[in-house]
Amino acid sequence: MSTPMDARNAAQAQAAGADRAGPGAQPRFAAAMRTRTFSWQDPAATAAEGLKLAGIDYIRAIQSGELPPPPIAKLLDMQIVEADEGRAVFALEPAEWMYNPIGMVHGGIAATILDSCMGCAVHTTLPAGVGYTTTDVQLRYIRAMGGATGRVLAEGRVVHAGRRTATAEGRVFTEAEDTLIAHGSAGCAILR
Amino acid sequence: MSTPMDARNAAQAQAAGADRAGPGAQPRFAAAMRTRTFSWQDPAATAAEGLKLAGIDYIRAIQSGELPPPPIAKLLDMQIVEADEGRAVFALEPAEWMYNPIGMVHGGIAATILDSCMGCAVHTTLPAGVGYTTTDVQLRYIRAMGGATGRVLAEGRVVHAGRRTATAEGRVFTEAEDTLIAHGSAGCAILR
Amino acid sequence: MSTPMDARNAAQAQAAGADRAGPGAQPRFAAAMRTRTFSWQDPAATAAEGLKLAGIDYIRAIQSGELPPPPIAKLLDMQIVEADEGRAVFALEPAEWMYNPIGMVHGGIAATILDSCMGCAVHTTLPAGVGYTTTDVQLRYIRAMGGATGRVLAEGRVVHAGRRTATAEGRVFTEAEDTLIAHGSAGCAILR
Amino acid sequence: MSTPMDARNAAQAQAAGADRAGPGAQPRFAAAMRTRTFSWQDPAATAAEGLKLAGIDYIRAIQSGELPPPPIAKLLDMQIVEADEGRAVFALEPAEWMYNPIGMVHGGIAATILDSCMGCAVHTTLPAGVGYTTTDVQLRYIRAMGGATGRVLAEGRVVHAGRRTATAEGRVFTEAEDTLIAHGSAGCAILR
Repeated sequence: MSTPMDARNAAQAQAAGADRAGPGAQPRFAAAMRTRTFSWQDPAATAAEGLKLAGIDYIRAIQSGELPPPPIAKLLDMQIVEADEGRAVFALEPAEWMYNPIGMVHGGIAATILDSCMGCAVHTTLPAGVGYTTTDVQLRYIRAMGGATGRVLAEGRVVHAGRRTATAEGRVFTEAEDTLIAHGSAGCAILR
Repeated sequence: MSTPMDARNAAQAQAAGADRAGPGAQPRFAAAMRTRTFSWQDPAATAAEGLKLAGIDYIRAIQSGELPPPPIAKLLDMQIVEADEGRAVFALEPAEWMYNPIGMVHGGIAATILDSCMGCAVHTTLPAGVGYTTTDVQLRYIRAMGGATGRVLAEGRVVHAGRRTATAEGRVFTEAEDTLIAHGSAGCAILR
Repeated sequence: MSTPMDARNAAQAQAAGADRAGPGAQPRFAAAMRTRTFSWQDPAATAAEGLKLAGIDYIRAIQSGELPPPPIAKLLDMQIVEADEGRAVFALEPAEWMYNPIGMVHGGIAATILDSCMGCAVHTTLPAGVGYTTTDVQLRYIRAMGGATGRVLAEGRVVHAGRRTATAEGRVFTEAEDTLIAHGSAGCAILR
Repeated sequence: MSTPMDARNAAQAQAAGADRAGPGAQPRFAAAMRTRTFSWQDPAATAAEGLKLAGIDYIRAIQSGELPPPPIAKLLDMQIVEADEGRAVFALEPAEWMYNPIGMVHGGIAATILDSCMGCAVHTTLPAGVGYTTTDVQLRYIRAMGGATGRVLAEGRVVHAGRRTATAEGRVFTEAEDTLIAHGSAGCAILR
């Protein structure tokens, strides 16, 4: 049975050796090449601002454009659509640049937007000066997303808001037809 | 209680209205702006090639550069480091452009690399012509990643390889110190 | 690192040796001893009958007493309270005989009633001759149950009913006050 | 959409009315009736004793018979087979009185023994006076258990032991053949 140490050694050997597409590994075919560029602002300044605000105010300031969106939102072109106490809705547009090797949008995209909407739903319940961190997520993928899916929404709702922990549930569905894409839940630790 | 329909209506109202940072929402401060560009190849051609290969051969062809990496690998600058039957190791470097609004790398990054290494571990066990899809993932975040974390590895291992279903476990840890970042498991449906 | 084989060897050594409370392990104190007796009927006959019925009819036949409850229901004194298409509600009364070593009802009790209500919710959607099996469950414990909790209800609802898979969510709450005890979700394989 | 309140009302109506197998619901057939009796000791005395001991000492005192097993262990006839720092192994014998309505051992039995071995694995790492509670479990059922399965072992191992939280993984497998029955993980809150 190999161990994490084996994996580290292999990774270091690889890094020390030639690059992955060396002379012995000719590309089998040339596919069309596409490019995307995105920009973001230094996230430390925004996060510091966030510590001074109630969670709902911080999220609404990002939604309105008063505060810049975090880098992850620019990486995935993901927006906050709604934020109320105990509830947050995000949106994104599935695209070719999100694809996995088996011909559909990678599950990590649904995971990221679900994690976002559930974490922000919990964040909306917190007063200024109280933080949180997501400790675990549980996700069920119902349908794959692809370029033809159209914009999807992800809605997170708080189920339990306690002093030390909180939980939330979330769903991803198409904006056009309410077709369910994925659902899940998250557990958070509240940092008072 | 609001419903998914409420969320759709709100999203449509917002899309129909002005953009989110309208004249009433002046940015509170200007932070330094950064930019990143990435490129990828048409994933359909690669996925079609993949259908002809045993899973382990397909993954190794991507690892060696014979086949182009999928777009998600370019989006996150994520590489395959090792692939054996029932096991796959991925690597990525946490970076500022992955940050969430609370000042650390978004949990979706760990979710994506874990989903990748666990799904690929299952894929390595499949003969040519047999597909799979991940039906659920369960992730535990132990430590946040940040710009100072350094390169991380994600190792997925198959736990159960059945005719109709398979399961895998995975861990993300730092390459330098073996510090645990996250762990989880995945369930897959095998498509024969 | 010990392996499953170590565990088997230890278990066999123990079984071959003296019983666990041998002469060298005197009980430290004598606590009051309580006893409970429960009865059940041969479950094979009922399960065979179930294969002939639509899921909703089978569950309602158990609920009404036409068919005997399964042994697990007698083991935990658990009842079906409601069953509609896509939804099932169970009830049980937390009791001292369900306690764990740290002074509260064992989490496995909430796990069992949640598994039951979610599995039955899926079962209600299936025609005669179509079976199912639960492939995974994900449970969040919000509050411990104890002798003073009073009767609890567990409600399961189908989220996705597909040809090959189904998912459900469930909640356990007190009958008297609607206080949330636990929530979770389940994935099922549909056996056509 | 019905609500928890609907479920409560239905439950109360049912409790107020006749019992579930009233005159209108004649049993369709009479199956053989079986009976089991189990005994347990007042768990409060043991739990109080447990607060004075390091976790590993408490679990070993139960294993050796110095302290009485908790009621759940008598309910399911479940034993502690091994306990080391960060690891615990339990055993039980699948039996007819554990069956669900679809002809196999109820998934809640595997859930309970997994919850037990993972929780105890965490408990073994705690000094006297520090408690824990399981906040969530994630379980994957690989094979059903039945009367012919024979004794099964459940091994839990700590993955992360932190100041505020801990995680563990667990597996259930047959003693005779190491055949995998179920696997999962748990998250715990540490109560200092």
